[in-house]
Amino acid sequence: MTLSAELWPDVQPDAARRLMLAAVESFAERGYHATTTRDIASAAGMSPAALYVHFPSKAALLFAISESGHQQTLTLVESVAKRDQSPLVKMHKIVEDFVSWHARRHTVARVVQYELKALPEKEYEVIAGLRRRIEQTVRDVIAEGTEQGVFTVSDVRTAARAVLSLGVDVARWYTERSGKTPKALGHDYAELTLRMLGAG
Amino acid sequence: MTLSAELWPDVQPDAARRLMLAAVESFAERGYHATTTRDIASAAGMSPAALYVHFPSKAALLFAISESGHQQTLTLVESVAKRDQSPLVKMHKIVEDFVSWHARRHTVARVVQYELKALPEKEYEVIAGLRRRIEQTVRDVIAEGTEQGVFTVSDVRTAARAVLSLGVDVARWYTERSGKTPKALGHDYAELTLRMLGAG
Repeated sequence: MTLSAELWPDVQPDAARRLMLAAVESFAERGYHATTTRDIASAAGMSPAALYVHFPSKAALLFAISESGHQQTLTLVESVAKRDQSPLVKMHKIVEDFVSWHARRHTVARVVQYELKALPEKEYEVIAGLRRRIEQTVRDVIAEGTEQGVFTVSDVRTAARAVLSLGVDVARWYTERSGKTPKALGHDYAELTLRMLGAG
Repeated sequence: MTLSAELWPDVQPDAARRLMLAAVESFAERGYHATTTRDIASAAGMSPAALYVHFPSKAALLFAISESGHQQTLTLVESVAKRDQSPLVKMHKIVEDFVSWHARRHTVARVVQYELKALPEKEYEVIAGLRRRIEQTVRDVIAEGTEQGVFTVSDVRTAARAVLSLGVDVARWYTERSGKTPKALGHDYAELTLRMLGAG
């Protein structure tokens, strides 16, 4: 499987995925604002005209990358949260998955997490909605654990913010040379998080 | 006192500080790569020629901002670490100060934390050295606490990373509308951190 197919299994055709990958790499290299659609097309080995067949603008590419990344992380958080398991087990798994996603996909995740301000207003609202759902899901699991006496948390909102913050920041510093696999890092951070929530 | 004098009390003359503030705002607005020295000079109400009196290049401005920010955070971390106090008290204070610095100075901190890749190689090495000292200082306090049995940490390196990561990420999400003052946030994060380290 190609890298772009692995990153965006839900996007078709392959040319669109190749453009998304080229955009991620170009944004990572020189930032969103300094990247042109011509840069992206050329990094994908395509003409600017061929780019416009798939994406009407650079902003549309950014939105596709951002929406897919937020959708993927929302899905992994929500799918664990609705399991019929203890909040402790669920929180461990959420942090493991969320952290290892940000480590494994760190270049994509950087665009997803750090280029929100560059989104046009309507697109930003869609992404903000996905972000609110991610945050609410984590809050709900913390609140559930607090009610059951598994967690001891005085401010659920701040605790949820800290949990997600630890995961998001992995995208900033993680590289393949970081010495820990994404899975091992996810496991360690899950342990630290449970302690932070007063279980451990 | 002007904002630029408050941010960079150690920089003289005031025109240099005004250029640094204009650079921070321009980088925050459109990213480092898409900002020109002309943009920065004009945001500071100066001519491009006047800018070059103080900074030979855009990269020199970025380095001045980055070095000052790293120096400030290193100073606050080191000054607490060398106190003759319990590692628990010191860690609480380090997190309070580090977190509230990133909240209070979030626009500057974003440039400091997220534009490292844009630094020229030599300048990057200077900053990397400051970052290693910050990280080492936090590791030392954690190791000291672990030896004394105040903290229970199996992997000091990962724990230090997580502690700093929580603080750095504040620069990404904090705004004046976040509902908590920098000081209150610093206090809450210090409590969460002590629990994460197995004390609390």
